[in-house]
Amino acid sequence: MKNRLLIAIFSMLIFWGNNNISAQVTDVYKQQRQQWLKKAAEAKPPLIKQIKKPISLVKAVKDSSAYQGWKTVKAGDINQFYRSSFKQNNVMIVDFGEHFTGTFSCTFDTLGNISDAPVRFKLTFAEMPAELGEPFDPYHGGLSRAWLQDEIVTLPYAPYTVTIPRRLAFRYVKIELLAASSYFDVCVSDINMEATSCVQESKLSLAPDTDPLIKEINRVGLSTLKECMQTVYEDGPKRDMRLWIGDLYLEALANAYSYQNNALTKRCLYLLAGLAKPSGILSSNISEVPTPRAQNSVTLDYCLLYNVVLHEYLKTSGDKETAEDLWPVAVNQLLLAQEYLNNEGLYDTAKQPQYWLVFDWKDNFDRHASIQGLMTFAFNETYQLAKLLGKESEVKELPRLINKMKKASRKYLYDKKQGVFVSGQDKQISYLSQAWMALSETLSPKECAKALQTAIQNPEACYPGSPYGYHYVIEALIKCGLGETARDMMIYYWGGMVKKGADTFWEVYDPNDDCRSPYNSHLINSYCHAWSCTPVYFINKYPDIFQK
Amino acid sequence: MKNRLLIAIFSMLIFWGNNNISAQVTDVYKQQRQQWLKKAAEAKPPLIKQIKKPISLVKAVKDSSAYQGWKTVKAGDINQFYRSSFKQNNVMIVDFGEHFTGTFSCTFDTLGNISDAPVRFKLTFAEMPAELGEPFDPYHGGLSRAWLQDEIVTLPYAPYTVTIPRRLAFRYVKIELLAASSYFDVCVSDINMEATSCVQESKLSLAPDTDPLIKEINRVGLSTLKECMQTVYEDGPKRDMRLWIGDLYLEALANAYSYQNNALTKRCLYLLAGLAKPSGILSSNISEVPTPRAQNSVTLDYCLLYNVVLHEYLKTSGDKETAEDLWPVAVNQLLLAQEYLNNEGLYDTAKQPQYWLVFDWKDNFDRHASIQGLMTFAFNETYQLAKLLGKESEVKELPRLINKMKKASRKYLYDKKQGVFVSGQDKQISYLSQAWMALSETLSPKECAKALQTAIQNPEACYPGSPYGYHYVIEALIKCGLGETARDMMIYYWGGMVKKGADTFWEVYDPNDDCRSPYNSHLINSYCHAWSCTPVYFINKYPDIFQK
Repeated sequence: MKNRLLIAIFSMLIFWGNNNISAQVTDVYKQQRQQWLKKAAEAKPPLIKQIKKPISLVKAVKDSSAYQGWKTVKAGDINQFYRSSFKQNNVMIVDFGEHFTGTFSCTFDTLGNISDAPVRFKLTFAEMPAELGEPFDPYHGGLSRAWLQDEIVTLPYAPYTVTIPRRLAFRYVKIELLAASSYFDVCVSDINMEATSCVQESKLSLAPDTDPLIKEINRVGLSTLKECMQTVYEDGPKRDMRLWIGDLYLEALANAYSYQNNALTKRCLYLLAGLAKPSGILSSNISEVPTPRAQNSVTLDYCLLYNVVLHEYLKTSGDKETAEDLWPVAVNQLLLAQEYLNNEGLYDTAKQPQYWLVFDWKDNFDRHASIQGLMTFAFNETYQLAKLLGKESEVKELPRLINKMKKASRKYLYDKKQGVFVSGQDKQISYLSQAWMALSETLSPKECAKALQTAIQNPEACYPGSPYGYHYVIEALIKCGLGETARDMMIYYWGGMVKKGADTFWEVYDPNDDCRSPYNSHLINSYCHAWSCTPVYFINKYPDIFQK
Repeated sequence: MKNRLLIAIFSMLIFWGNNNISAQVTDVYKQQRQQWLKKAAEAKPPLIKQIKKPISLVKAVKDSSAYQGWKTVKAGDINQFYRSSFKQNNVMIVDFGEHFTGTFSCTFDTLGNISDAPVRFKLTFAEMPAELGEPFDPYHGGLSRAWLQDEIVTLPYAPYTVTIPRRLAFRYVKIELLAASSYFDVCVSDINMEATSCVQESKLSLAPDTDPLIKEINRVGLSTLKECMQTVYEDGPKRDMRLWIGDLYLEALANAYSYQNNALTKRCLYLLAGLAKPSGILSSNISEVPTPRAQNSVTLDYCLLYNVVLHEYLKTSGDKETAEDLWPVAVNQLLLAQEYLNNEGLYDTAKQPQYWLVFDWKDNFDRHASIQGLMTFAFNETYQLAKLLGKESEVKELPRLINKMKKASRKYLYDKKQGVFVSGQDKQISYLSQAWMALSETLSPKECAKALQTAIQNPEACYPGSPYGYHYVIEALIKCGLGETARDMMIYYWGGMVKKGADTFWEVYDPNDDCRSPYNSHLINSYCHAWSCTPVYFINKYPDIFQK
């Protein structure tokens, strides 16, 4: 009852003025935080553990026609590898055949003489052939060098089993002898990878006559999603291993059309709520280790997407109790966002504090039209959620506000002559501006379709830099009835990754630049990245478009 | 009964001929081996574990007047160190104040922001300041580089506790930040060293008016011995961590005059017996890990010293049961050794197989006179052992053989004119030839004293290269009544190490060459080495010489 009362106060405050809002919010969070974290803990899914073994011996070969200039070729049978001399061959690479995430153990043994001294190996765990071929040092990347998965291990004696303490994500392991005694030779006698995920098999299957490339995209997408579904929806099991709201959204969509593990979505929604800032603003992402905690950063687009996830979760699971429980969190994101609207309902780019807007990994991409579109979309989603919960009276001013925002969008961001949305001082035309405006329903589907087509046909237009960006473009194309274009784009983009050998889909993919990285080093990119799994969602949700 | 019968057969075979000896020996070993290993396991001492903490922050400073060119100076208070920023100061060194052996753990934490990425540190564990100051790579040593105690660790998040899997031995730990996130700073919040030894306090104490330097030598010797007394007498806790017969001998002597842990001596005697080669020859050394097993090498001087240890053990402990049990092992070493005597009783340097003769770490040291002396000494010790066990009838030919050997020594190895023993084609005069001949009682004590003095006064004479070699010289000097010279030598040699800052005594020490190493790198030398602990034995056994 007290809760309801507070919500009522919120909803009044949203439209009547903002005095003392944060104090009220703090009260709600003080009351609910522990309860939400408890529910998150209760929903934690058990991990399914499976022992995996390498299936062959490979070598990394430089090849300018291969993705990033490297490929692997078979170098021997795996049975040949066990008990092979590291004195004869200092470096050997084993291939697990697919991407796994978990705990790696390796047993080393002597060949011939017994051990009389410690031995040292370097182990390099690679998602991609480039990580096998290129040296990690000197490192010029912008993120911690320690994300790169190489470890130096000392065997005090042999036989000896090394277990790498940190969880790893890889397909290949390079094993390199660094130091040994002249008195005895050494080999690997066993390898065990305890692979983990909270899911195993998709609940859905494709029409038998689905195009083989679409089938392959679906398979790789499922693998990507499975690897990222651990005890939270992670962004990437190699890096950052964290729950980001943006990734959560796309993973939850794909999960609804595959593994259907609703408990994980519920857990993540509660975790984010339980770890919100004292003011009620959600952190962009949280870590689970050593104990669940929020990272400092706030990203306004992600805050709003939380509401969309909650809405989708309710539609998928029917779990009204959770949605009601977390409704105050959604309201609070609205409160935060509306602070950024000017009197005409346009996003004010000068308003402080300026939160990071994610949207995509793309240099020079102007985000003004996109945030305006996303806010409009999310406000509408939040209103739909309120209706499902019978709470529309609490946010009854929303439809009026949404209309005001659309009007402002048309007035300030739409170039009628060209039939596209433009963004920023340079009137940038980007795929994403059109996509977010389409999703916001600011114009009619026909107008939006035209805007999308105009942008796509313009070689100067700013195209997305990441699968995350492409997701919203495809969703918008489908929404505007451009299913064929959506299908072509998926085949071009995700099909491109498949053709370039992806076992799982990548964090960053630019068809024109193999080595693009937002971190100044393609080695530190994540090559199994959650926000890239959404073909699973599209293919399974829209069989008429993709399964033919 | 059956055992006795076999021994009787042995003793007859020794002097009547060697046909089929090895077959008989194999039978004894087949019968006893498991029983001996069981007794070794039963005698395994519990390790005493104590948590140790660093006591100050130091830095390594280049100083040409310091041993090996490096010294440590205090750089701060230890409380200051905890929570110090590694971003401000990439490398910090903590000092435990004394040498410890055991398991090292270190807890890292964040400073300010929470962790968003893994962090990487390099930890270098050093017995000596030079190990802190000099880079380990490129490494040119002759033993495995992996003995050097540096480890690279990855913290997946913080706070995080790293425990180094292998056991370490050190006084100092250098902690070096290799890779971090730009987003947060990191510090050490706790360090725990679980130090182990099977002993704690010496049972004996020195006369209060003992010379302060002798007191200090005794203290450092006790520390050396304690560190090497784990679940076997190890040679060195940093390297090789193994039970060598030569080290066992000196450690058992020092133990008898300090910690008096007879169980450990018993365990080692049984382990060596249980792991003898099928022919009954003892291996020079054994490892305990992963399960007790012998290294391949055989060293004839060490085989014979086993008999001396067994004799000393019986005298110290009164444990006749063990001595009787292991008597066949002693007989078997006699059998092996006598094969190397020619008809005149002189050691035949051409006889195959040529086993390694340890004696000392010293280039160009000729071992002929020394092995002749050691064999004579060990045969006599074995005969004394037989008498204590009432088994002299089983080796009744020994006194006659010993006399024959002494006669041969006088004839072929003694230079009457100079009054010294000479060795090898170049008639080398060495301290050790005189020492071993003195211990063998080949000449009168007066003649031996003269031989020792002549060698010591000869600047061209080959002096020992290791504390192990010096031990026998000092023992010989005392035996010949040259207590003052023995005392002076200990003060010169072990006192020299103390003055140069030894916390524990070193494997190799040449007063004229700080960086001498038998392994082509002084960094790989062991600086807490068992065979260097014997001042404890001398000082406590001979109070009239040393405690005044």
